[in-house]
Amino acid sequence: MKINVNENFNNLSKNYLFSEINIRVKNYLNTNPNAKIIRLGIGDVTLPLPKIVVDAMKKASDEMGDAKTFRGYPPEYGYEFLKDSVREYYKRKNININNNDIFISDGAKSDLGNLVDIFSDNEIYIPNPVYPVYVDSNTMSGRKVKFIEGNKENNFLPMSNGLDSNPKIIYLCSPNNPTGALYNYDELKTWVEYAINSGSLIIYDNAYEAFISDDKHPHSIFEIENARSCAIEVSSLSKMAGFTGVRCGFTIIPEELMAGDTSINALWKRRQATKFNGVSYPVQRAAEAALSIDGEKECINNINYYKKNAKLLKDFFDKKGIYNTGGEASPYIWIKCPNGYSSWEFFDFILNNASIVTTPGAGFGKNGEGYLRITAFNTLENTKEAIDRLNKII
Amino acid sequence: MKINVNENFNNLSKNYLFSEINIRVKNYLNTNPNAKIIRLGIGDVTLPLPKIVVDAMKKASDEMGDAKTFRGYPPEYGYEFLKDSVREYYKRKNININNNDIFISDGAKSDLGNLVDIFSDNEIYIPNPVYPVYVDSNTMSGRKVKFIEGNKENNFLPMSNGLDSNPKIIYLCSPNNPTGALYNYDELKTWVEYAINSGSLIIYDNAYEAFISDDKHPHSIFEIENARSCAIEVSSLSKMAGFTGVRCGFTIIPEELMAGDTSINALWKRRQATKFNGVSYPVQRAAEAALSIDGEKECINNINYYKKNAKLLKDFFDKKGIYNTGGEASPYIWIKCPNGYSSWEFFDFILNNASIVTTPGAGFGKNGEGYLRITAFNTLENTKEAIDRLNKII
Repeated sequence: MKINVNENFNNLSKNYLFSEINIRVKNYLNTNPNAKIIRLGIGDVTLPLPKIVVDAMKKASDEMGDAKTFRGYPPEYGYEFLKDSVREYYKRKNININNNDIFISDGAKSDLGNLVDIFSDNEIYIPNPVYPVYVDSNTMSGRKVKFIEGNKENNFLPMSNGLDSNPKIIYLCSPNNPTGALYNYDELKTWVEYAINSGSLIIYDNAYEAFISDDKHPHSIFEIENARSCAIEVSSLSKMAGFTGVRCGFTIIPEELMAGDTSINALWKRRQATKFNGVSYPVQRAAEAALSIDGEKECINNINYYKKNAKLLKDFFDKKGIYNTGGEASPYIWIKCPNGYSSWEFFDFILNNASIVTTPGAGFGKNGEGYLRITAFNTLENTKEAIDRLNKII
Repeated sequence: MKINVNENFNNLSKNYLFSEINIRVKNYLNTNPNAKIIRLGIGDVTLPLPKIVVDAMKKASDEMGDAKTFRGYPPEYGYEFLKDSVREYYKRKNININNNDIFISDGAKSDLGNLVDIFSDNEIYIPNPVYPVYVDSNTMSGRKVKFIEGNKENNFLPMSNGLDSNPKIIYLCSPNNPTGALYNYDELKTWVEYAINSGSLIIYDNAYEAFISDDKHPHSIFEIENARSCAIEVSSLSKMAGFTGVRCGFTIIPEELMAGDTSINALWKRRQATKFNGVSYPVQRAAEAALSIDGEKECINNINYYKKNAKLLKDFFDKKGIYNTGGEASPYIWIKCPNGYSSWEFFDFILNNASIVTTPGAGFGKNGEGYLRITAFNTLENTKEAIDRLNKII
């Protein structure tokens, strides 16, 4: 064919992170066929769905098999029953949002990727290191990306100091993937004030919110005064309710969020009505159950299991005097590789000497070089065993 | 905020079709509170899911509630078990595709909307009248759209004669929404030859394929020789299996489809891996069940119910000497409004004199003016009653 393709795809960096990890693990197992591998590189939940969620999904499936209760096309922005549940979930954290602010989706990744559709050329600022979808989706649209540097000096919580006063689109992820670092009220307030003063938009990735249990860190950017006039919040049930395989998220775009005379909420409505047909009815019922008072309790039990693992890992690295972030309001512990090791060197060292798989920080951006991401999604038993093994070699 | 939004959204035509219909029906009911409305405007399935599908979805939900069978993130391009089912479904129609050609999605609308991401500026040709997503998604990306005119002269099956020999992206929908017209083997062969000679791409919307039961019309563009080098096929379980509320579709991009040196399959892989996180596991198991041999039988039973309604309607308009298309391999009958009525005038005439709701053809593009779309998704009883009423006024 002679048609023109999107040449911006050529500017995407090839990410071989997880395939390279798989190759190295495979080679290790070939040489050490009896090694008992423990995977602390998992970025995915492992505990099954709460019963209340499964029951809701099965009940909704039955409804779809009965002429009296069958449902066809769902509303493109989500059923009101699920928007009610999202609104009530926020309200229990003393945050007020309206149903019209809420867009139900098949997950945060889709929304984070598709949001570029409603904007044109803007300065784009993205933290480094971070989840690669922000950079890749902007690169695909030919947008140039600038980085906000996360590092040991700012505890991987980069701030707005040093940024000029031009309007820009700023991506923030808190608690952060991969560093587990998260902004407190004052820090997020500073970001919101910067956005308002510069006429900027903050796209706030809140996917790990459910891991926050103290009162020092906001559960939503909309806890900060005036954030409704400068922020979009993208959230997900993936980590909150173990929905990575169920697929449901939601994005909050306040009705009063305006770029000049243009309502961002209205633009997204039109985008979704044109290119999306809503989320599966049984999935929306499952999400409703997860966000209910009883459902949230069961979900938090699962999160607390991961957090216990995370605390054991964090305490271990603290005891060893190894610099780290995360591990408290996050399933991730982000550690500085000791002895000047690079990310991949330390990955290999741990794999070869303790049969433990981790994730090299260099895979999340240049500022990740010299760091390693360790996750809390394995079992308690394996996490303890991994710590025993690490204790012998670090 | 001072950020720049996508100004192309201003070029979208406001589509008030269904809201305007609702207003007119409401007004009618206000004046005629006892009227027994029959809706022949429904563009959505109404029969419940087959039991085999519900059982599969419930079984998969149970698996998600058990640690031993829980599944996290699905593969971005779909589980192999479902790709196997799609491949076998095609094979039963004597069409060979490979698993690597298949991308599982949450529905045809998402894929049709998102496909624009992987192309840059091209000449875009779209039939008129047609499903509005093709025009709107291209307009959002700032692409200029030209129309291929469907009309009574070509029985709403526009062909390539008259088109220049420049490479272009051509959207075809067969069986067509809203006209129900569909290309036979020779006609589709002519389109494929035109695409190959001009270096063009055909995006083939095959969402209504399951309504085809004769041997004169292809079930897939890939039944046509060489189509693998010039076509993408977008398909869906929405109409085939009643999945409008379950959300599952698939797009076939042959591995050897190339634009110059660029693999279209590889571009779409990268797009989906960046902006999509796969389809819900229970939904994929439900789709697998629907595409199985036993599942297909149950789905075809439902389709035959709609087709019986469609035949009754078509026979009625034929008997009345009213020009129409569709009604055979489609749930839609597309009729010429008699007596020079415009679309909205005839809509009103039928609503006011027979309490029947239809869809004005003008809502699907300028060539739809003077036509009406009537659907077969209501019950057999109501369809018969509607015909009796129409018989008294036409």
